[in-house]
Amino acid sequence: MSTGSPVGSHRVVSPAGALPQAADRLDPDPEIADDEVRISVERLNLDAASYRQLHDAHGGDGEAVRAEVLAIIERRGKMHNPVTGSGGMLIGTVDAVGPRSPLGLKTGQKVATLVSLTLTPLRIDDQLARWDGRSEQVPTSGHAILFARSIAAVLPDDLPEHLALAVLDVCGAPALVRRVVSRRPERTAAVAVIGAAGKSGSLSLAAARDAGAAQVVAVVRDEIEAAQLRGSGLADEIVVADATDPLLLAKKVTKALDGDGADVTVVCVDVPGCEHGAILATATGGTIVFFSMATSFPAAALGAEGLAADVEMLIGNGYVPGHADYALALLRANPHLKDLFIDRVDHANRQIAGLFEQEQA
Amino acid sequence: MSTGSPVGSHRVVSPAGALPQAADRLDPDPEIADDEVRISVERLNLDAASYRQLHDAHGGDGEAVRAEVLAIIERRGKMHNPVTGSGGMLIGTVDAVGPRSPLGLKTGQKVATLVSLTLTPLRIDDQLARWDGRSEQVPTSGHAILFARSIAAVLPDDLPEHLALAVLDVCGAPALVRRVVSRRPERTAAVAVIGAAGKSGSLSLAAARDAGAAQVVAVVRDEIEAAQLRGSGLADEIVVADATDPLLLAKKVTKALDGDGADVTVVCVDVPGCEHGAILATATGGTIVFFSMATSFPAAALGAEGLAADVEMLIGNGYVPGHADYALALLRANPHLKDLFIDRVDHANRQIAGLFEQEQA
Repeated sequence: MSTGSPVGSHRVVSPAGALPQAADRLDPDPEIADDEVRISVERLNLDAASYRQLHDAHGGDGEAVRAEVLAIIERRGKMHNPVTGSGGMLIGTVDAVGPRSPLGLKTGQKVATLVSLTLTPLRIDDQLARWDGRSEQVPTSGHAILFARSIAAVLPDDLPEHLALAVLDVCGAPALVRRVVSRRPERTAAVAVIGAAGKSGSLSLAAARDAGAAQVVAVVRDEIEAAQLRGSGLADEIVVADATDPLLLAKKVTKALDGDGADVTVVCVDVPGCEHGAILATATGGTIVFFSMATSFPAAALGAEGLAADVEMLIGNGYVPGHADYALALLRANPHLKDLFIDRVDHANRQIAGLFEQEQA
Repeated sequence: MSTGSPVGSHRVVSPAGALPQAADRLDPDPEIADDEVRISVERLNLDAASYRQLHDAHGGDGEAVRAEVLAIIERRGKMHNPVTGSGGMLIGTVDAVGPRSPLGLKTGQKVATLVSLTLTPLRIDDQLARWDGRSEQVPTSGHAILFARSIAAVLPDDLPEHLALAVLDVCGAPALVRRVVSRRPERTAAVAVIGAAGKSGSLSLAAARDAGAAQVVAVVRDEIEAAQLRGSGLADEIVVADATDPLLLAKKVTKALDGDGADVTVVCVDVPGCEHGAILATATGGTIVFFSMATSFPAAALGAEGLAADVEMLIGNGYVPGHADYALALLRANPHLKDLFIDRVDHANRQIAGLFEQEQA
């Protein structure tokens, strides 16, 4: 039994020298290296952007979507949508653990992978026969490979699977918020979360509170979202503002903080153009954590310079050790947060159902 | 005399509510608000990307380039190239200082603006008559406005103007490197600078040393750059590697550090695709500072997650208080660094001259 590269480069077929995420094609050979883990796959959870693209490209024809996903997996050895560049995650059971795997997994455990499907070697053996191509949830069978530096979370017994997955999908955010807020002197940090009613936003509110923030401000886009948070106890103040209107956003956040900027600003809004508002809403010496994939690096860098803003800006790394357990613990400890999540998950399911209702109408 | 918005939004003509950088048009009225400063302009220093675009668009016709720059300034009230989105900086003399300006400037001082021309109200009164359109350096006259939150540096007496400008152009990098390295316990941090032979890279090397780094590794792209750094004393180790080849880069950096990753990695290479190499070259718990505008936010965020890398990633903010003085002090204290800069500035001048020689050949 050989030892693999901890980042999986021994599984890259082409191009030579690439990392698995950048690779065109991976080798999903079921024989594992002695630091790898093999998962018996039960379900793929396609990334929303990827599913939407496939759905639209085939005009909602589920059979065509199914055939294309199958073709991608067979051609690439991974479920890596070449158009969106995104993947998703998978659920399965640990099938084999190499003697030198550092992941701490045991055979028979039910797990979710927390690294993207875009870098996970995957082979399907049922032709996706049980999937109608009309949902992001793909029941299937086959196997996937985890490397030494992969991440997987054991699914908890006490939470419905779809709820646990929704939490695990964004679990990097609360862990990083906790770390950044904890660095401040206890009970002094004012924290503003922009896009606070979403999954990563609401978990960030709870993490800020848990880490000892003195004040937590939730910024949401409309009264509907404000109503969802009101009474939840997750925030001290709820502010309705357009995150892409920098002057107005900063004015409302500083007003909520009695004239000061936030010491820690967390950006969870998935639309472009939120960088300057976040910079203006942050106090001198404060920290901004950008979790939105719509963040523009130059807009943030040049914006802070142009505003002479002495703020530290972090790229929200989705990996912090212990992130999965921490996010699940926050949910368990906070019934209001759990209710918000249940609403979000139900809402997302209704949206997908709506895609098909629109076509039939 | 009225008080302006500290970020200059009172000068925005359109669209309403925008910040000056995002505005289509600014009002360069010479009458200043009581927290503004008026500069008598001597020279514009067009950003290299902007000048190159203008030059190419007009097939090297200097007269046409001159006419277009003039038209942009008249139409927009600022020198904001609509194609590249970039500007540059300017040199001039302080002409009037509002009584509530916090910038600490005095009438008669010669200054360079450190905020971009893309957000600086500007009016020209000589039709750019002294400029032939064939260089980034634009001698002119007119006036420009600084806001309360602008930044300008008084030009030093002891350094040639073009050398001081080259340093001021990248002065945010060494100041942020000093801050990040100084947080580590004294004389323990191993620092790797990727793209170490350039302007921001060589200043970052000097700042790492000054901040008490235990080991400084310079990563350069070829033997020519390695030779420039060798004997300079700026680095303990010089590594030649392609920054876009993640596995090879990480291997060479960790070899230079006796098997460990860097505690602080500084990315100054202006090409896309350097994120994953920087992540793999950094130790667990380390910090990466991205200064390159070619940095991709999603590549960094998803890359770290996919590699299960517990690293902190900073967006290189070009503004840190005291950055200009610190960068100039590093240059004065380090003759080797000064020589490198003189070579760079001469080389850049030769490249611009070369643009025209090629056309005549």
